Amino acid sequence: MALTGVTRPGHMLLNVLDLNEGVDFYTNVMGLVETGRDDKGRVYFKTFEERDHSSVILREADTAGVEFVGFKVADEATLDQLEKDLNAYGVATERVPAGDMLETGERVRFVIPTGHTMELYATKTQFGNPLGQVNPKSWCPGHDKGICPVRLDHMLLYGPNVKEVLDLFTNVLGFYLTEYVTLPDSDEKGALWLSCSNKAHDIAFVEHPEPGRLHHISFLPDSWERVLRAADIMAVNDVKIDIGPTRHGITRGGTIYAWDPSGNRFETFMGGTAPYPDWEPIHWTWEGLGEGGGLDVAHRKLHDTFLSVVT
Amino acid sequence: MALTGVTRPGHMLLNVLDLNEGVDFYTNVMGLVETGRDDKGRVYFKTFEERDHSSVILREADTAGVEFVGFKVADEATLDQLEKDLNAYGVATERVPAGDMLETGERVRFVIPTGHTMELYATKTQFGNPLGQVNPKSWCPGHDKGICPVRLDHMLLYGPNVKEVLDLFTNVLGFYLTEYVTLPDSDEKGALWLSCSNKAHDIAFVEHPEPGRLHHISFLPDSWERVLRAADIMAVNDVKIDIGPTRHGITRGGTIYAWDPSGNRFETFMGGTAPYPDWEPIHWTWEGLGEGGGLDVAHRKLHDTFLSVVT
Amino acid sequence: MALTGVTRPGHMLLNVLDLNEGVDFYTNVMGLVETGRDDKGRVYFKTFEERDHSSVILREADTAGVEFVGFKVADEATLDQLEKDLNAYGVATERVPAGDMLETGERVRFVIPTGHTMELYATKTQFGNPLGQVNPKSWCPGHDKGICPVRLDHMLLYGPNVKEVLDLFTNVLGFYLTEYVTLPDSDEKGALWLSCSNKAHDIAFVEHPEPGRLHHISFLPDSWERVLRAADIMAVNDVKIDIGPTRHGITRGGTIYAWDPSGNRFETFMGGTAPYPDWEPIHWTWEGLGEGGGLDVAHRKLHDTFLSVVT
Amino acid sequence: MALTGVTRPGHMLLNVLDLNEGVDFYTNVMGLVETGRDDKGRVYFKTFEERDHSSVILREADTAGVEFVGFKVADEATLDQLEKDLNAYGVATERVPAGDMLETGERVRFVIPTGHTMELYATKTQFGNPLGQVNPKSWCPGHDKGICPVRLDHMLLYGPNVKEVLDLFTNVLGFYLTEYVTLPDSDEKGALWLSCSNKAHDIAFVEHPEPGRLHHISFLPDSWERVLRAADIMAVNDVKIDIGPTRHGITRGGTIYAWDPSGNRFETFMGGTAPYPDWEPIHWTWEGLGEGGGLDVAHRKLHDTFLSVVT
Repeated sequence: MALTGVTRPGHMLLNVLDLNEGVDFYTNVMGLVETGRDDKGRVYFKTFEERDHSSVILREADTAGVEFVGFKVADEATLDQLEKDLNAYGVATERVPAGDMLETGERVRFVIPTGHTMELYATKTQFGNPLGQVNPKSWCPGHDKGICPVRLDHMLLYGPNVKEVLDLFTNVLGFYLTEYVTLPDSDEKGALWLSCSNKAHDIAFVEHPEPGRLHHISFLPDSWERVLRAADIMAVNDVKIDIGPTRHGITRGGTIYAWDPSGNRFETFMGGTAPYPDWEPIHWTWEGLGEGGGLDVAHRKLHDTFLSVVT
Repeated sequence: MALTGVTRPGHMLLNVLDLNEGVDFYTNVMGLVETGRDDKGRVYFKTFEERDHSSVILREADTAGVEFVGFKVADEATLDQLEKDLNAYGVATERVPAGDMLETGERVRFVIPTGHTMELYATKTQFGNPLGQVNPKSWCPGHDKGICPVRLDHMLLYGPNVKEVLDLFTNVLGFYLTEYVTLPDSDEKGALWLSCSNKAHDIAFVEHPEPGRLHHISFLPDSWERVLRAADIMAVNDVKIDIGPTRHGITRGGTIYAWDPSGNRFETFMGGTAPYPDWEPIHWTWEGLGEGGGLDVAHRKLHDTFLSVVT
Repeated sequence: MALTGVTRPGHMLLNVLDLNEGVDFYTNVMGLVETGRDDKGRVYFKTFEERDHSSVILREADTAGVEFVGFKVADEATLDQLEKDLNAYGVATERVPAGDMLETGERVRFVIPTGHTMELYATKTQFGNPLGQVNPKSWCPGHDKGICPVRLDHMLLYGPNVKEVLDLFTNVLGFYLTEYVTLPDSDEKGALWLSCSNKAHDIAFVEHPEPGRLHHISFLPDSWERVLRAADIMAVNDVKIDIGPTRHGITRGGTIYAWDPSGNRFETFMGGTAPYPDWEPIHWTWEGLGEGGGLDVAHRKLHDTFLSVVT
Repeated sequence: MALTGVTRPGHMLLNVLDLNEGVDFYTNVMGLVETGRDDKGRVYFKTFEERDHSSVILREADTAGVEFVGFKVADEATLDQLEKDLNAYGVATERVPAGDMLETGERVRFVIPTGHTMELYATKTQFGNPLGQVNPKSWCPGHDKGICPVRLDHMLLYGPNVKEVLDLFTNVLGFYLTEYVTLPDSDEKGALWLSCSNKAHDIAFVEHPEPGRLHHISFLPDSWERVLRAADIMAVNDVKIDIGPTRHGITRGGTIYAWDPSGNRFETFMGGTAPYPDWEPIHWTWEGLGEGGGLDVAHRKLHDTFLSVVT
């Protein structure tokens, strides 16, 4: 948790081109659990293990991509304070009333310089999971349906002005920079990995001319063996893989990048460094991102799709 | 990191009965890296991957056990604030001057109701690790010497008044309770797992009549396969194992408990739940600790040594 | 495959005290697939991946244990030859007609000096598995039900005269000795691991006064991670574990010993050395079996149950 | 072991362009153990765990590639018999005297229709390994140097007339076909996976116009995690990777293809199906090889280099 009380990327709304197809994919291939549908046509999901009501919410739209990302904060007082801090910093906010999303309290919404809509919220019903809260088991039937990640882990977003986003996330929201890439022949940071925890990253940004783009949404299986199993499951389901299985040099996590039926890239990610705010951020040069294995330790190259394919 | 700015159990001083034997064990069996020796006879170690100067410090003494545990905090202002908070809460503190420990700043020292000496500090030289800070590799020669854990992970301490310690750690130091065990036929919490991060625990306590005892110091290998490799290495080196390999129901981490040459129990721990402060703590009954697999998922019993053998 | 044409322990009949309970266990906990029932009350199972009609067959009986073990041989001519070789060696054989077991050809049955009934057979219908025979997938839904081992791997049998069994298996049936234990203060082999393949063992024997006993039947998950998952599944299903998770020094395989509801010990085994017939067998002394980690690398002791509990 | 007494691909002579560079690579990157040098300029290696004197032998030559592959057979009588069988089949053989290779007996040499030189031999000194033969440990210092595979596993060779090679290997040498690929719009087998054990393959062939080519030499790490570690080690050492980490549909093994400094492709392979001679071979169509994931489960395509780059 950040010093500010921001805990995690708790939910995100993902646009899909065909809702039934999307629901089928996230249910049967990804192995998420559907937890509800609302009258706005949104379908709510959580992983088997997550405890809050929902983390990934699907909505049918004309274009794929991310509608908003919401960070859960410690409590309602924290929410109020962070809204004040955002306003003081010059960021306009709007309140979305409690109940607009199922089992979710009031949300503070704002747009960041990369053009993405962000939210903060303090309240979401804690449903728990089938393992239970008293003397829980470490496994239960149904545990291994589909890819079955542990959690929504992070997302990588593309848009302009990442330098301003760095300032906002570190100076207002309390994130810290874990790793960054500098642009060719420049000291300017063109890609940022930011953490509000001791996860390798909770959100990441890459400088990109088009605002508001989604590079990928990332799910965490809990081992490299589970990443291979994810590849097997993708193969059975004709899921197109972009990169991997491999290791990212950046974060050191094991990874597969692939695409959902709407063209949203998703990741099955595991491992990775567990950093702390006092650690010196790791610097990747542009060559380091490619030839240095920052993106892909095995192949040590900058895959074309990494910079060009977003939703 | 806790809202208070406490980040992690950053160092601990471990008493060993024979310094040379201890240094040999933590160097060649555990695979830690010696980083210095001071004029008080203390030998400093870090894991291959840790970045700060030292995490485990050995000292020869007549009895084994833990001398103190130090938590690294965000910065010197945080240190001052936490000292004030401790004093306001009624805990007496003392300052240990910078330089008393190698490459370490001023420490705020205090004794908690279980009889353990705790420290807070903000400054320790960041040495980095051989992987480097610019375009780091994900492996380097020497990476696999001995058990070679990723980090000092946590420690489990035994002593009286854990209920008071719970109050101190949650209300002053900013930790949160992730899991707890209630005593037989009672609602009283007899064992606590506390986190100041999203690690399954950063420190844990068990109610025990003798003050200031060490149950175990825990190191993190990064996979279940590495835990088996740790068992192989222990076997080659005649290290006596207490429990495991198995899974703890509590934290869900994979584990081996074993003893160093001085009789200090250590753990090679992996995985485990990654909790958040807003999660409802998991409740283990006394039966859950034993028959329910809280201690040992495979054998589902309360091993005698768990409650009786401490240093 | 042995030079004689013996390929593997292809089937075994296991006595259970309650058929429904046994069927439930091997279906839902072990995750085997039921493939048929015959008019003698026998229920046939295979693993998800095995291709022949059946490997484990259950029958209700007053006492648990193994009724017979059958080795599949290359073809009917091999079966005839091996029967002649057995007879020439002085072992009486009997033919069980084709069709006595479902989808299984004629079997040559004989009793070995440890008192166990063995069979050889050449024909069993090859059903294949759900992955398919043309462009098969590497995973399919249903792949992960219960423990879901890859195959029936081997069995360890207890009885008298293992020295004679060694002669019979190596000189007539074409097995080779991979590892053995000598009795205390003796050169006499008291335990044998025998392979007719390059598996670490296809069958093993321990000297024991009572004839015809079963120590365990072993199933192969394909990784150490799957062995931990097996422990989780055992815990959910209240399966009592004897030893493990740990590594055997003998074979170097990862292991859990546990008991089915009738008290038959089973093993979830992984890895292990892949030996060849020209390799010098590995010699374990009696101390090596216990303190040397032959049975249990982690705990390096001779667990009481290992020598005393059989069915 | 095949019914004929052929046990395994026991040694192979690999041509490298620069001997020192090759020795450095196979010692420090692959982690093989040098066991000798002879007066013909050949350098002998084994894996840490292999017991025979040598498996991979390097020689400097003007072109990279494989000079010969030798299969170890059960004994000298088997060697004589197999030579007779080869001659009777119409294959000319030549005897290479004992001592021509270090610690190796007489070899029977012959050329197969794909243009590769094969050898059979019965005798090679068994050196054992550092784990020992009496009460061996399961690990020892030095176990984890470089990639450190368990064994030389198999090789894939390219050349014409694979159909004839299939006949020779199955009808004379006793191998069995485990999997095969048919050419586009054809029933003709264009690629063969052959086993003389219950390994997924001991040798494989792909139809190719140029005779005597090497596609890859394969080494076996013992887990998917070790394959990732191999990728890390390749990255540190600037080893160029061709394909992977991924899973082959064919054999179901985990894999990385990469190149040694001379351009010889090698593989780090793990897992894979453990077949038997009585199993129906698995049929891959040409589309199955590519889009069906036969080569690459994750990416499901026929990588260009697979058919075009050989030495």
